[in-house]
Amino acid sequence: MTTAMAGGAGGADALRRVRLTLAYDGTDFAGSQRQASGRTVQGELERAAGELHGEPVSVLLAGRTDSGTHALGMVAAYTVRTRLGPQVLARALNARLGPDMRVLGCEWAAPEFHPRFDARSKLYRYRLWVAEHSHPLVRRTAWHVRGPLDASAMREALGALVGERDFGAFRSSGSEVRTSVRRLLRARLGRRGRLWTFELEGSGFLRHQVRAMVGTLLEVGRGRLQLEGFRAIVEAARREAAGPTAPAHGLVLVRVLY
Amino acid sequence: MTTAMAGGAGGADALRRVRLTLAYDGTDFAGSQRQASGRTVQGELERAAGELHGEPVSVLLAGRTDSGTHALGMVAAYTVRTRLGPQVLARALNARLGPDMRVLGCEWAAPEFHPRFDARSKLYRYRLWVAEHSHPLVRRTAWHVRGPLDASAMREALGALVGERDFGAFRSSGSEVRTSVRRLLRARLGRRGRLWTFELEGSGFLRHQVRAMVGTLLEVGRGRLQLEGFRAIVEAARREAAGPTAPAHGLVLVRVLY
Repeated sequence: MTTAMAGGAGGADALRRVRLTLAYDGTDFAGSQRQASGRTVQGELERAAGELHGEPVSVLLAGRTDSGTHALGMVAAYTVRTRLGPQVLARALNARLGPDMRVLGCEWAAPEFHPRFDARSKLYRYRLWVAEHSHPLVRRTAWHVRGPLDASAMREALGALVGERDFGAFRSSGSEVRTSVRRLLRARLGRRGRLWTFELEGSGFLRHQVRAMVGTLLEVGRGRLQLEGFRAIVEAARREAAGPTAPAHGLVLVRVLY
Repeated sequence: MTTAMAGGAGGADALRRVRLTLAYDGTDFAGSQRQASGRTVQGELERAAGELHGEPVSVLLAGRTDSGTHALGMVAAYTVRTRLGPQVLARALNARLGPDMRVLGCEWAAPEFHPRFDARSKLYRYRLWVAEHSHPLVRRTAWHVRGPLDASAMREALGALVGERDFGAFRSSGSEVRTSVRRLLRARLGRRGRLWTFELEGSGFLRHQVRAMVGTLLEVGRGRLQLEGFRAIVEAARREAAGPTAPAHGLVLVRVLY
């Protein structure tokens, strides 16, 4: 490491609020959040950063993803004294991480930057592979469902979700958050051949909310649930009324917006 | 199995030339072609078909793919006496195959159908992930290269490959095919963000030809090789002149055309 990399500080360590953008393949993680046992995104990042900086590091994440759920743009932050520049730091972390997890960007943030509390919204994508047979090359990143599915009916139901409302119908059973009111900013369903993609942007999401919404939307797509019934489920805001929770592996956290 | 599934044959076994369309994730295969040891596409298919039909089955494939190379539309064929219908046969094979390999389609072909000799052309795709850092979700299906890469220069070089010519510059070392003359029908380079995709359709390809072409095209993209030098390499038709062979995992056999 040369002092040239430290920039204007002449090689002296400076206190940095490190802001990272992360991508990961969630298949082999027991979720994002550190646990007593099991490989997690937070745990791996804290291990890598600890090795790099030579001291224990506590990492904050913008949100929680379940085991099997992926990220293209998770945001993380930690504070450390370092003389490294952001690009060097990103490369050095990547050298200490497995190939299923990458730091895609690194920058210095304000000392008080908090990846979760400062987030304005999050963009999730949920992918379906709509076909008779599953597909080997998308099997880790799309939920295989057999058609037919009525895309127009699902789009109508999606429209009924946009806005600020009580999403209690789609909360995780046993969840203990104070309020289940959230604001869904955008919701669309795109199709590219047999790959169907829900895009959902919201101010925040309850645990399992996206997966429960997708599972219930599928009931609409299959004609088992009419639009009026769907609306009634949303209004009732009780978990028992909604459809099953879609599997974790179709879900990707695309971006956190600040 | 009910006799209704056998169709008009009233439940009697009929001699069938089975034509299959296959997709696979090549990561955990030692290539497509059966070998003394190692898990192969041909070997897995013969095992599954043998189990299903209760007799040894010899499978022909439309071509050979290397370990790590994928397929969306490989074609296979075998002959067997069966009372199953094509849809039931496809599902029954899939029930006996791992999740990284799927029969996507099954139909009856003429008794003399040969997936390799009858093929008019093949379409391959080679994907690059052009970015500073690798990407966890495309790491098995795209070659990570750092830019900058000159797309226009690579497109010009691609144009110099189209047509019937001696592709000896891109043949596998130690290859013993009689002639290295092949016809390249189409060649293009598409870009979607940082995912760059070569599409190459040809009457046939030498072993490792696509990978060697991509490796040499990258030399052009990096400015290490000028268009004139590239043309000279192609004309010389000697393997030593060309660039390195791109890794197997960026390559997908998309379709075999008959």
